[in-house]
Amino acid sequence: MTDFNRDPDSYQHWRLGVDGKTATLELAVQPDKPYRDGYELKLNSYDLGVDIELADALQRIRFEHPEVTTLVFKSGIDRIFSAGANIRMLAASSHPFKVNFCKYTNETRLGLEDLATHSGVHTIAALNGLAAGGGYELAISCERIYLVDDGNSAVSLPEVPLLGVLPGTGGLTRLVDKRKVRRDHADIFCTVAEGVRGPKAKEWNLIDDTFPRSRFDERVGEIVKGLNDETPARGDRGIKLHAIEPEVSEDKIAYRHVTVDLEPEKRTATITVHGPAGAQPKDGAGYLEAGDDAWALRAFRELDDAICRLRFDHENIGLWLLKTRGDMDAILEVEKTLAENQDHWLVREITLFIARTIRRWDLSARSLFALVDQQSACAGVFFELALGSDRIYMYDSSFDDDLDVQMAIGPLSGGLLPMSHGMTRLENRFLRDRDRAARLAAEQPRMSGKDAYEQGLVTVLADDIDWDDEVRIAIEERVSLSPDALTGMEASLRFGGAENCDSKIFGRLSAWQNWIFTRPNATGEEGALVRYGQPEAATFDWRRT
Amino acid sequence: MTDFNRDPDSYQHWRLGVDGKTATLELAVQPDKPYRDGYELKLNSYDLGVDIELADALQRIRFEHPEVTTLVFKSGIDRIFSAGANIRMLAASSHPFKVNFCKYTNETRLGLEDLATHSGVHTIAALNGLAAGGGYELAISCERIYLVDDGNSAVSLPEVPLLGVLPGTGGLTRLVDKRKVRRDHADIFCTVAEGVRGPKAKEWNLIDDTFPRSRFDERVGEIVKGLNDETPARGDRGIKLHAIEPEVSEDKIAYRHVTVDLEPEKRTATITVHGPAGAQPKDGAGYLEAGDDAWALRAFRELDDAICRLRFDHENIGLWLLKTRGDMDAILEVEKTLAENQDHWLVREITLFIARTIRRWDLSARSLFALVDQQSACAGVFFELALGSDRIYMYDSSFDDDLDVQMAIGPLSGGLLPMSHGMTRLENRFLRDRDRAARLAAEQPRMSGKDAYEQGLVTVLADDIDWDDEVRIAIEERVSLSPDALTGMEASLRFGGAENCDSKIFGRLSAWQNWIFTRPNATGEEGALVRYGQPEAATFDWRRT
Repeated sequence: MTDFNRDPDSYQHWRLGVDGKTATLELAVQPDKPYRDGYELKLNSYDLGVDIELADALQRIRFEHPEVTTLVFKSGIDRIFSAGANIRMLAASSHPFKVNFCKYTNETRLGLEDLATHSGVHTIAALNGLAAGGGYELAISCERIYLVDDGNSAVSLPEVPLLGVLPGTGGLTRLVDKRKVRRDHADIFCTVAEGVRGPKAKEWNLIDDTFPRSRFDERVGEIVKGLNDETPARGDRGIKLHAIEPEVSEDKIAYRHVTVDLEPEKRTATITVHGPAGAQPKDGAGYLEAGDDAWALRAFRELDDAICRLRFDHENIGLWLLKTRGDMDAILEVEKTLAENQDHWLVREITLFIARTIRRWDLSARSLFALVDQQSACAGVFFELALGSDRIYMYDSSFDDDLDVQMAIGPLSGGLLPMSHGMTRLENRFLRDRDRAARLAAEQPRMSGKDAYEQGLVTVLADDIDWDDEVRIAIEERVSLSPDALTGMEASLRFGGAENCDSKIFGRLSAWQNWIFTRPNATGEEGALVRYGQPEAATFDWRRT
Repeated sequence: MTDFNRDPDSYQHWRLGVDGKTATLELAVQPDKPYRDGYELKLNSYDLGVDIELADALQRIRFEHPEVTTLVFKSGIDRIFSAGANIRMLAASSHPFKVNFCKYTNETRLGLEDLATHSGVHTIAALNGLAAGGGYELAISCERIYLVDDGNSAVSLPEVPLLGVLPGTGGLTRLVDKRKVRRDHADIFCTVAEGVRGPKAKEWNLIDDTFPRSRFDERVGEIVKGLNDETPARGDRGIKLHAIEPEVSEDKIAYRHVTVDLEPEKRTATITVHGPAGAQPKDGAGYLEAGDDAWALRAFRELDDAICRLRFDHENIGLWLLKTRGDMDAILEVEKTLAENQDHWLVREITLFIARTIRRWDLSARSLFALVDQQSACAGVFFELALGSDRIYMYDSSFDDDLDVQMAIGPLSGGLLPMSHGMTRLENRFLRDRDRAARLAAEQPRMSGKDAYEQGLVTVLADDIDWDDEVRIAIEERVSLSPDALTGMEASLRFGGAENCDSKIFGRLSAWQNWIFTRPNATGEEGALVRYGQPEAATFDWRRT
């Protein structure tokens, strides 16, 4: 089982330091502490364990250190920033693990960009030496990149020439989309194993600047100071994030607000999310006091953990069924507080985190069905999760005197929970009718099944007589289909309209990477990834496709 | 060797009829005339041969029938429009062929949309019965889709449930991006093998309308008449397109204006394009008179043919080297005429065709190096081909008294030759400096190597001493790299910025399709594509990735 809990005191590979307004993340990977046995993490290369620590550190900077206005990435090893994802690990991993690993690291990098864009924390990669592959991809996720100019240190993406695979953590897309590197420069950069050194790297905009080793720390320090001086802190004291430790059994992962019921033989999991139980904070101060006990934060930390565990530990479970429980009014009340207190840093961070978690939901390579059943509480953020699902089944309670199954749109749906490609889920659903998306977001209606169906928010509305059969048959059909075809289909249908850098990373780059990972030229016995470092060179099937 | 020449008189699978302002393309596939032996083209299913005829027919409607204002697709078979791409053909094809086939059909469908958008010819799919898979994907490439309402006829995308692959000819993307079908409706539509019939198909916007069989022809006829009445013809008489028949030998494909030198042992091909030799038309009337002898049309028909042949017949040749020859002034003179006569239908069609051909260049899964060598004539449309290449090597003649190697931007580069994602190639090159793209397009400078390099238009500038080695080493390095990794890398670097429906079809959908085609769940011995129609069901590896 994968445990995503980490704590700075026991990080194995990163050192998180906070000094006034500056946070430093120093990468010093312990070679003999890989996530799985069988390879050594030399030269600050990384694996899932290293990246889980990084994801944890970024969360802590957000929530525990609102005083931080600049985050600097450094290396704890002389003359090497990072050699990127560990090659032996990749070569020895199953295809699903490789794909899941790349997706998780991609989400972490996007979270880092989100920290700069939406939380206003400046991010700097201070490269004391070689940043290769995933090492450079971490750097390019920062706002600014500085590289030592010593005639030797370089940035590089050597995956194509050395391994026959792609830089799979957003590097290619960010080169041309984010840093707007000229395509022919990018082409050379990605095919030259040794990479590009300081002055030329600056000229090509692969980095922002380069300084001699003797003055490197000083110059970076000046820049950090300048940024800190001009940037107000989000807050002065943070809240403590405690570990999320579910009870895990054969068929269940049980958290406080989230329960996952596993039915591996049916290849389904039912994810039940529960609304708030007790009183919830009414403003920013209340949230500071409640800390990570507040439902809005706690519930989504649990859901995030559940999504990650399901992805990594339950590969065969292809269909996730969403159920919502609780008091719709209480959920909407929480959302009202969140929406009205966006000027408070903690409320803002909680909202941003909910948004990232629902994007993780959108990007999960599993079929997602929302079941708005008899006991459901499909309001606000739970409604967003339903909208992020491939289908929404809703119980029609209009013939039932004792039941009133409803669906309600909350104040966060109008723009505070954007999808990867920048649209709201309402806009993405009503591409043909943008006015409807705007109206629903503005009016935030509470709807019966019939109303919600008429508004286009329900895929299948079924009453008492049909519900069980409708849902059962839909599930049986879904789990019978080719898992690969479903992944490609869902990735294509979930994101309508124009793409941006973020969504291209998942939709375009990941698809190519997945393809290349399955090709004998990379992962066959004589493929480049498998043969890397061995005396014999790779053998290629030269047919271009 | 693949012959892309066809003639309506000898079409095997389509009947092209022109009656006043209406063209009709009737699909009546001959089952016993497959492109390759080994399968039967039942139920109007198609293969490459069928699609080459379609591509030819669309070109003829453009150039030979400017009087046409509406194109109607029909079936010549009772109660079946088309069963889509032939499954036996797909199952028996190599991976490179499948990918090339899908790309070619995609380009044909985009050409059909271009006919409607840019030539103003209305396109209608009149579905007399089942339109499944690629059959529906042809329909969804039309402006309007009408389906018989007989309680039986349906549109469907059964690839996922029946074959474990994706609808690979743009269907998924066009569902949500073009027709803006709600994502949950699209999800159901793509997982239900039997498809969706008339009334519900209309409700979900899968079709535009549905009519009873008894009144179908009449209603479609009324719609066509209405469109014809309100749409002016582009012209009154067309020009004749003659066959493009190169001399093909072991190491050469020789046309009038294009020569392809094949070096299969080096895995390279040199494509040399020649500028106009004699006098060229000065206006629309002149182009009408010159017919398909005009250089602007002839040269690009040859280049288009060469690209298609290289893709299909020379899979191992991974690097195309572009060389340009001729008189730069003559090329720019032709472009001036084209740019100034966009209100003439034939000039417009020639320009649109050049644009489509250069897009085919952009989309070719081969490395593209432009060599602006000592004898080059890199002006206008040839400059665009260079800009569409991964790298531009230019000879620096500044130390050479007898030579003046230059590069010149022509009037078409400012917007008349857009890339798939809508940008000009100058804009795509200078994403960091849009002003420069606009300025270069406006000023249309003629530049020495040094000037062009300074403007950012040259990747490597090399003089007499270095040229041979620079080029030789670059070629040797390129052809040594993994062909799969290069395909993914180039697809990611060539198109910067936001994506649209067209570019998503190639960049996102094709990548997923390629991946799925290589997966055992589709093409393994027990995969769904291979097992289709056999008594035993497919066996899946259920791990989701």
